[in-house]
Amino acid sequence: MKIALAGPGAMGLLFGGYLSQKHEVTLIGRNQERMERIRTEGVRIREADGAERIFHPYATAEPGQVTEADLVLLFVKAGDSRAALESVRHLLDAGALLMTLQNGAGHEQVLSQYAARERILIGTTNQGSYRLDEVSVCHSGLGDTFVGAVSGDAERFAPVAEAFRECGFPCELSSQVKGMIWNKLMINASSSVLSGILQMPQGYVAENEAAWSMARKLIREICAVASADGYPFSAEEQIERIRKHLQNAPGGYTSVYADLKAGRRTEVSVINGAVVENGRRLGVETPAHELIVELVHAMEGRNCHG
Amino acid sequence: MKIALAGPGAMGLLFGGYLSQKHEVTLIGRNQERMERIRTEGVRIREADGAERIFHPYATAEPGQVTEADLVLLFVKAGDSRAALESVRHLLDAGALLMTLQNGAGHEQVLSQYAARERILIGTTNQGSYRLDEVSVCHSGLGDTFVGAVSGDAERFAPVAEAFRECGFPCELSSQVKGMIWNKLMINASSSVLSGILQMPQGYVAENEAAWSMARKLIREICAVASADGYPFSAEEQIERIRKHLQNAPGGYTSVYADLKAGRRTEVSVINGAVVENGRRLGVETPAHELIVELVHAMEGRNCHG
Repeated sequence: MKIALAGPGAMGLLFGGYLSQKHEVTLIGRNQERMERIRTEGVRIREADGAERIFHPYATAEPGQVTEADLVLLFVKAGDSRAALESVRHLLDAGALLMTLQNGAGHEQVLSQYAARERILIGTTNQGSYRLDEVSVCHSGLGDTFVGAVSGDAERFAPVAEAFRECGFPCELSSQVKGMIWNKLMINASSSVLSGILQMPQGYVAENEAAWSMARKLIREICAVASADGYPFSAEEQIERIRKHLQNAPGGYTSVYADLKAGRRTEVSVINGAVVENGRRLGVETPAHELIVELVHAMEGRNCHG
Repeated sequence: MKIALAGPGAMGLLFGGYLSQKHEVTLIGRNQERMERIRTEGVRIREADGAERIFHPYATAEPGQVTEADLVLLFVKAGDSRAALESVRHLLDAGALLMTLQNGAGHEQVLSQYAARERILIGTTNQGSYRLDEVSVCHSGLGDTFVGAVSGDAERFAPVAEAFRECGFPCELSSQVKGMIWNKLMINASSSVLSGILQMPQGYVAENEAAWSMARKLIREICAVASADGYPFSAEEQIERIRKHLQNAPGGYTSVYADLKAGRRTEVSVINGAVVENGRRLGVETPAHELIVELVHAMEGRNCHG
């Protein structure tokens, strides 16, 4: 398969590296120097057991140079999706499939402005990685990847799932992928974002009475929106599931935590923002998520303040 | 007038000191050593122009020793009100008036469990001070004090207002004092608490789009509750007033800011908590204030986290 992968961050390098074992992968980034380094040094992936592997996908900062692709994989931050999609529009116009595993929900609304809905795959993954340096990542999370169709039957995308599997990523097609995305959002848009706002490890969210009360409010709102979207979740079940998750890994830190600590923009717009937007679309009120989105944006803004 | 003043903090020392010029004031605190220092060294008040004055109210850590009072003045933090009121119950039972200028709203609900409503005065003050040391304060804010009755006509409390005035505190009786308390809460429960949560000077709240959107939500909820309470505020007028206030003193820091920075408990329970409680009583929803109260409590809790 010819794969063009936009967004060579931690997850992009992980997937791009492994997929290049059996496929013709081109990483597309914006930083010319860094793309050059990836071309010469390769992508280095350190496994949890310390083993290191180096892969050599192609890498470029000039998307126009990529003339052919069966699949465009989008791994940029959600806020950069439009720019990345613009840069590979020629590949999409020529009929490439378009796939994203981005965090959050509702990405298909943006993607479908660049490709026919029948050619779009969305998914969710439990794989995880973090950057070690410009060309290296640590493969910190293993787990299933679920892929589904935005429109029509998922089965026709079997070759994509197979491509992932044969490069070491357990991957399943699912007709319930939107439900799975909601499921993942339950944690990301509740305890994870609160851990970031409070700048405390995620276990604190379940331990502190007030923080846990906030988390429960957020989970209840997500369940109300997901249910209106056709995915009926039981709020009490989700609350219990997330409480256990936090108790099992109380010392865990989340991406919103790391982004706010470093003074970077977070992904709150596609995490809690997705709950707000879907709520509006479906007529469900989400006052807690609305306030959380604004609070995180207000926190992000502190660094630009003179 | 015989005045028993419970809570010798920054505001207690300021009022206790000046009132002792013409009245028999006893400061009641819990720290024996500190009360002893006040007895021997007096209360030192530094004015903004640098002038210092020393006053000699009586001070004790044993409330039982105070056998007579015309007026009990409550200056403890709201969370300590019940304990303080218990300690002066003998004075209240003997018929003393009970008065508070505490921040927040709804204190009369607690006070009326210790004194007949007809003997309770509530008020709001623009006086301000901060502690310099155990016995010294800086008189940092000048302005009117408004006093009103919880039940019945305010006019019968004219001698109390006169007692304040003759000791240097401009003081007016008002039949609208509850409306004034709501008015003060508009700022305290919106921009002030957000400045504390964000750990930014209060001007940032008006400058940052997301923070200002949160502030507007909070102000709208306060106006809805105040209106249901019989004090019809225009939300748009209040939003404009507060925006100007923040623009006039953008570098200002608030007590919630200072408390969170120092890892202390804040007064959020009587500030935003008052909006929530009054909203519940009056059937008005206050989702933003509910979340803010929990968020600040979750922030306070970080220090106790092992």
